[in-house]
Amino acid sequence: MNVEHDTVSVGAFEFECGETVPDLELAYEAYGEFEGDNAVLVCHALTGSAHVAGRDRVDSADQARAWWDDIVGPGKAIDTTEYFVVCVNVPGSCYGSTGPQSVDPETGEHYGTDFPPVTVGDWTEAQRAVLDELGVPALHAVVGGSVGGMNVLEWAKRHPDHVERIAPIAAAARLDPQCLALDAIARRAITTDPNWNRGHYYGDDHEEPSDGLALARQLGHVMYLSKASMERKFGRRAAGRDAVRSFPTDQAGAFFPYRDVESYLDYNAEKFTERFDANSYLYLTRAMDNYDLAAGFESDADALAAFDGGALVMSFTADWHFTSEQAESVAEALREADSEVAHHVVDSDHGHDAFLVEPDNVGPPLADFLADGVSGKAVSDTVVDDSEESDFAPVHTSLFSR
Amino acid sequence: MNVEHDTVSVGAFEFECGETVPDLELAYEAYGEFEGDNAVLVCHALTGSAHVAGRDRVDSADQARAWWDDIVGPGKAIDTTEYFVVCVNVPGSCYGSTGPQSVDPETGEHYGTDFPPVTVGDWTEAQRAVLDELGVPALHAVVGGSVGGMNVLEWAKRHPDHVERIAPIAAAARLDPQCLALDAIARRAITTDPNWNRGHYYGDDHEEPSDGLALARQLGHVMYLSKASMERKFGRRAAGRDAVRSFPTDQAGAFFPYRDVESYLDYNAEKFTERFDANSYLYLTRAMDNYDLAAGFESDADALAAFDGGALVMSFTADWHFTSEQAESVAEALREADSEVAHHVVDSDHGHDAFLVEPDNVGPPLADFLADGVSGKAVSDTVVDDSEESDFAPVHTSLFSR
Repeated sequence: MNVEHDTVSVGAFEFECGETVPDLELAYEAYGEFEGDNAVLVCHALTGSAHVAGRDRVDSADQARAWWDDIVGPGKAIDTTEYFVVCVNVPGSCYGSTGPQSVDPETGEHYGTDFPPVTVGDWTEAQRAVLDELGVPALHAVVGGSVGGMNVLEWAKRHPDHVERIAPIAAAARLDPQCLALDAIARRAITTDPNWNRGHYYGDDHEEPSDGLALARQLGHVMYLSKASMERKFGRRAAGRDAVRSFPTDQAGAFFPYRDVESYLDYNAEKFTERFDANSYLYLTRAMDNYDLAAGFESDADALAAFDGGALVMSFTADWHFTSEQAESVAEALREADSEVAHHVVDSDHGHDAFLVEPDNVGPPLADFLADGVSGKAVSDTVVDDSEESDFAPVHTSLFSR
Repeated sequence: MNVEHDTVSVGAFEFECGETVPDLELAYEAYGEFEGDNAVLVCHALTGSAHVAGRDRVDSADQARAWWDDIVGPGKAIDTTEYFVVCVNVPGSCYGSTGPQSVDPETGEHYGTDFPPVTVGDWTEAQRAVLDELGVPALHAVVGGSVGGMNVLEWAKRHPDHVERIAPIAAAARLDPQCLALDAIARRAITTDPNWNRGHYYGDDHEEPSDGLALARQLGHVMYLSKASMERKFGRRAAGRDAVRSFPTDQAGAFFPYRDVESYLDYNAEKFTERFDANSYLYLTRAMDNYDLAAGFESDADALAAFDGGALVMSFTADWHFTSEQAESVAEALREADSEVAHHVVDSDHGHDAFLVEPDNVGPPLADFLADGVSGKAVSDTVVDDSEESDFAPVHTSLFSR
């Protein structure tokens, strides 16, 4: 596979908030050959990187493991022998693109929380800038999961004439207040960690707010799973092993078992604090929480009115972070905007993580959609065409209608 | 209403862990007159107190507001003109009963985390001891919601011959791993607060771990609500007011709105840290998480086999902390144990809090159950008697069967 792994400077960049950084650097990866009409932009999720595929490369600045290697590659659903695939680490993140942990060239100090707040709109414009650098004027498709799916919707809203097809997966037009609450609590866990120091904790004379970041990540993991998947993975079993990351405890606590589910949370929190920056977690969750497709428009449909490409909305039945009901509402908006749209619902008890861990369910409809649009063979829809059954019935009836 | 508000010493008390305190004091309230067969024990939820009814009394050692005043009182569902109602603050709590913040008479110091770990079994035996002091040998009923409903089940398991009727409300035989995870994260928020100091923070020369306790409470509030109730109460609205409890933040965060849902969480967290002890929160959540009705038995039904009274299991459709499915499983166990049982499911989108905030739904079936058992007029059941429809059908079919 032809992989390009690089960082590009797009120069001075003005964020949606009105603040500017003098030199925005963006890490990206590109796979395959650009042939004019075969570019596919992949948008990563909250804590993802540009390293979407290619298991073997390990780079200290990136996640060691490619996050969607089951989906992207030669002969895979997003086939890199057919498509020119690009993934850009979003500004505000910590995997090679400029963010809070970067050094401000004007002061020589780490930005910390002096870095401008970022939005999903900023991510979109940053990706646009990288594509310009790569000489890619228009995209065959934009694909992404979770907040990466919000990023996909923002592309259709901002650049409707430069995108043929969109595939927002396990995504929504906006988060619901339950998820806003959990994200707000996660941020408070970081900002109440005394090591956070109002965001200025870089350098050898500071400790990082890793306890707060660990708690935030643990909340994330609960949001990524479902009751059913947690029951299956952990039940109420004792762990039968020591904690990888030990949190302070007391002798009274030792009377009770250390459970498998705690071990999972502690292990993953420990790994996460080794690879992710706490300020980036604040910045990126704020971007996600603030995202509202309808912002600046009358409605979601209005925001998508100028987009006349095809759309594959994909959701997972046990996902409570981004629900199938929210996905159906996105599909409804696209139908209202007269797009060709299919809402493909995957019956899965994995929860939100399904878009990452169920390539056999995600791959086929995605591959067929990229090739043939919503009429692709493996693409299903929640809408039943019942126009032949009755003269009086509406032409389309969604399975989600009440 | 005749209200008795007192603290009783039950002397040396050995906890399930094997440790003993030399003098266990238990705060209780009693309402009405004991007439030999009319005693009803009410078990409070996680952060509740003995102050179950009587709005007007304010006592600095207690919650100012009676927590079930809509249900307990003269002419109410648990009618204090008919029943002698007793509620005991559980050991390990901080509303007048001995717990971590109490002074150990042997050292003259606050127990802190040297206080023995407590279990739901310990709560039950402590309540039993208070009833002995009050001269109440047997109970007409034990009623309680949430972990108080686990406490109810423990009564039927431990003292089956001394309880006529049980009403576990919004309860379960054990927590599921999703809730175990959230409680574990909440405890980590407390124990990573540097002010926690391994549980020894009492006295004027220490700060309390109020940030950690605030975060733990905020997680609790998310568990007590549902997606639907949060959508209705808060949506994604900006708060339009300043934070009551301000958490550290940064200038980048100020770009985004302070939302109504955050204001709710911050306000309630602030009130909670004023009234509750962080160590008690650790102790009581551990007791809840550890509770398993089947412990020491082959199954839930086996644990309840000796109980031959009546049972009203009540649950709420949008409760994801203690689900209707879990309640049905408790009802199944009681059916297997040949109890007279009804599982009354309330269609409500409030979430777990419904048992506190929907007295019009909780009161009538509870009142009728106390008076007439499971044949009480307002009591419904998930079981349909279809014995007349077919000779081959099982006598009972639960609506929850799959």
